[in-house]
Amino acid sequence: MQNLCFMGLNQCLLPLWINRIMISRVLLSPSPVCHHLVKEILIIPERLTVHRQRLADDGTETRHETGPATDSKEYCSQDKDIVEVVRTEYVYTRPPPWSDVLPTIHVITPTYSRPVQKAELTRLANTFLHVPNLHWILVEDSQRRTPLVTRLLREMGLNYTHLNVETPRNYKLRGDTRDPRIPRGTMQRNLALRWLRETFNSNSSQTGIVYFADDDNTYSLELFEEMRSTRKVSVWPVAFVGGLRYESPKVNAAGKVYGWKTVFDPHRPFAIDMAGFAINLRLILFKPQAYFKLRGVKGGYQESSLLRELVTLSDLEPKAANCTKILVWHTRTEKPVLVNEGKKGFTDPNVEI
Amino acid sequence: MQNLCFMGLNQCLLPLWINRIMISRVLLSPSPVCHHLVKEILIIPERLTVHRQRLADDGTETRHETGPATDSKEYCSQDKDIVEVVRTEYVYTRPPPWSDVLPTIHVITPTYSRPVQKAELTRLANTFLHVPNLHWILVEDSQRRTPLVTRLLREMGLNYTHLNVETPRNYKLRGDTRDPRIPRGTMQRNLALRWLRETFNSNSSQTGIVYFADDDNTYSLELFEEMRSTRKVSVWPVAFVGGLRYESPKVNAAGKVYGWKTVFDPHRPFAIDMAGFAINLRLILFKPQAYFKLRGVKGGYQESSLLRELVTLSDLEPKAANCTKILVWHTRTEKPVLVNEGKKGFTDPNVEI
Repeated sequence: MQNLCFMGLNQCLLPLWINRIMISRVLLSPSPVCHHLVKEILIIPERLTVHRQRLADDGTETRHETGPATDSKEYCSQDKDIVEVVRTEYVYTRPPPWSDVLPTIHVITPTYSRPVQKAELTRLANTFLHVPNLHWILVEDSQRRTPLVTRLLREMGLNYTHLNVETPRNYKLRGDTRDPRIPRGTMQRNLALRWLRETFNSNSSQTGIVYFADDDNTYSLELFEEMRSTRKVSVWPVAFVGGLRYESPKVNAAGKVYGWKTVFDPHRPFAIDMAGFAINLRLILFKPQAYFKLRGVKGGYQESSLLRELVTLSDLEPKAANCTKILVWHTRTEKPVLVNEGKKGFTDPNVEI
Repeated sequence: MQNLCFMGLNQCLLPLWINRIMISRVLLSPSPVCHHLVKEILIIPERLTVHRQRLADDGTETRHETGPATDSKEYCSQDKDIVEVVRTEYVYTRPPPWSDVLPTIHVITPTYSRPVQKAELTRLANTFLHVPNLHWILVEDSQRRTPLVTRLLREMGLNYTHLNVETPRNYKLRGDTRDPRIPRGTMQRNLALRWLRETFNSNSSQTGIVYFADDDNTYSLELFEEMRSTRKVSVWPVAFVGGLRYESPKVNAAGKVYGWKTVFDPHRPFAIDMAGFAINLRLILFKPQAYFKLRGVKGGYQESSLLRELVTLSDLEPKAANCTKILVWHTRTEKPVLVNEGKKGFTDPNVEI
């Protein structure tokens, strides 16, 4: 992990969608896009058999390769039914814009396997694909990085780092039955923090912002531009938390945060949801001991366990028009009803959902 | 409504996000984007007071204006504390690509007011913003077009048409208590079909595809390119419907649809979810009597009530690799718990969620 460097260049990694007829030309005008010409070697009698592996499956952290794609003559040249086909790819897969002057936003997303996982990650990625200089650190709660998430990341065209760590289940069930487990996502967020500290030098000029974005929330594009100017820790309201339409920092006339507009325990040090703050990368690097506390943290105190290591209330920078605008929603997706699958399953388990 | 013309030009309508400090310069390189320079007149002592209204609030159907934005010297020139500020806008608000040769996809979305509505429409729009030649027909189930939806559409940068029609509630409750109401979304989808027929001439060379996309589903970008080549009606699997991981058309070796892989009533004429098919615009225009049936339609037969007016089983064109790939998920968003709002409300009702 230590040797990984995060590549922040504009790139052109596009998913391949194979058409029935292999020559498909999609022309767009005007075309502010990465219009990408690919030559492929196909075996004509077979349909839909073309695969193209641009990233090595090396069993370690995956990341985006940068630089132009190479032609792919390495495949299947042992067969004689071969023809060369020129195909242009769908051009809307525009690579996310990249700037040399904007700070990078490192978005940390813990995720775990469940029926709606791919759907959630798909619409999340569709949002992230609009945001310049976004680096997605996706951390699976699993023993291994799963093929589903690996494929999705490769095909999406985002800058990403793919990590995993499994939360031990019912590990040493203690006397405290109210909160015996490590809260979901905590170990994964901490691993991402460690990755950042091992990857970036605190003396480097690399500017960055760190944001914890769960995979079922809803994010406006505006949110990312609000957080991009974070000097220490910026804060804003989050909808649908704490039994309220929204929870919010309290901001006084001088534009300083002085408390928390919440019903549930407003006297917490930082009564704020995980989606309601961002941290300057430099602060993460300068305070290498700051992590989310794994155990013995009361409900609602998870965020405080990290933030109290980093800032005080007076350091907080209110965003979203002095915390008067909702730019993120703590949406929850229903568990789908699968009653008709029966015990043996009805649908083809090889079809990925 | 009849006089509305749908504008399909590439445009540059960008939301304005006002920074605390008014001079913010965002430079991106490379910049395959609509990099937009705006001059604004600001009153310095006040913060966050700049508003810019580029579209008239005319109380009729809204749509996108095309053409370049004008500088905005019209504001507040009666005050003396005025300074001219040059500001570039956030550049990731790239307009969706537009092509002169691709068919337009008319996406019809019924929507209704509820706490998660803005969140749902926001992430849906974030997906649609990637799709070339997409025209969003958003139809509210309401007496009037609401300010929330009107603003959202104006700020999003999509091509759109905004309509409304209210479904009568508990109208003539009949003996059949199982299904006494008009199913949600039906009148709204039908209004959009009428709008298409009143807007486009069946003899015109305008090519288009019609797709019904509810506001809580999850859509991959690939789906839109699959449906774009629809000649009559194309079909594909949908995840999380009918109590299954997915429902799917059955496709034989010759690539023809011959039935339905469903548990619930597979003998329906078209045992397919609303998200599982698209229709060529020409077919909609050539069959002007084809609408969704409003009443007396058994559960699961809504889709059939329209499709049987348009095609037979043998006409269907399977997409998504012969219906073996999941490109759309019938996700459902949980109703948020707002118990702490209390009877009088706790949060500021003027803050839009």
